[in-house]
Amino acid sequence: MIYFYEDIVIGEPIVFGSHTFTAEEIKAFARRFDPQPFHLDEAAAQRSHFGKLCASGWHTMAVWMRMMVDYRQRKAAEIAAGGEPVPTLGPSPGFRDLRWLKPVYVGDTITYSSTVIDKRLSNSRAGWGLISVQTVGLNQGGETVVSVVSTAFAERRPA
Amino acid sequence: MIYFYEDIVIGEPIVFGSHTFTAEEIKAFARRFDPQPFHLDEAAAQRSHFGKLCASGWHTMAVWMRMMVDYRQRKAAEIAAGGEPVPTLGPSPGFRDLRWLKPVYVGDTITYSSTVIDKRLSNSRAGWGLISVQTVGLNQGGETVVSVVSTAFAERRPA
Repeated sequence: MIYFYEDIVIGEPIVFGSHTFTAEEIKAFARRFDPQPFHLDEAAAQRSHFGKLCASGWHTMAVWMRMMVDYRQRKAAEIAAGGEPVPTLGPSPGFRDLRWLKPVYVGDTITYSSTVIDKRLSNSRAGWGLISVQTVGLNQGGETVVSVVSTAFAERRPA
Repeated sequence: MIYFYEDIVIGEPIVFGSHTFTAEEIKAFARRFDPQPFHLDEAAAQRSHFGKLCASGWHTMAVWMRMMVDYRQRKAAEIAAGGEPVPTLGPSPGFRDLRWLKPVYVGDTITYSSTVIDKRLSNSRAGWGLISVQTVGLNQGGETVVSVVSTAFAERRPA
């Protein structure tokens, strides 16, 4: 995910890391951005269709974003330390097909990974390619809890 | 957005409200979930392709989520106060075609609205319909900064 366009390999998963969701952070995120009872309160969650306290879907995506940014910054530092030019990842125009497939409950550990599923040169921006990336979050039981396809610009290797 | 399936009208926008993004909250969200330089630091943002400090795209979506939840809770309270049955909005299976079209800079005021663009009865869940909703955020200049299509379950009116 931090490569020049030419070096990006389709179909090779990158694992960003794992995160265990605590009740405290689930509630803190929900208080600020998604104050629905099943994200805020154990008893209310028990009465809901979820059955137990679970994280806001937006929270599960924000944690992925954080892991990906950390990963890219680590990689960029490694590349710079090796004296190589550091590729820039451009802004993301957005994403498609975000699916929250299973609830993320308190204590669940989600492992996030991304796989480039397509790449092509950009028609609108010289010097850039466009990549399609499939990202998934899996719980400790191996079930996919969230899945999303995103697109991003990737810089071409300087001539 | 808080109606029984039968009462949901296609093509009628609901305005949730407006939010002005401050430098403090942009940086606070970025520190936690999207620590890229152009979301954290004015000088670094000036050197980036954005030119100025701007909000994480995830932040612009989380603010929308908060406004929508507040709106639904206000409406539910009004309906309950009128002695009417309160419809349940089911979990969202996800969304598609999220586009971050323009940056959201410090001081920008974004107005969020949603329009139901399609509805049908659910095949998998008796007693529920499925609605497609187009949500947009517009800045003070009337430009669309974010656009997303989501799907949600809506309860049918009790017989």
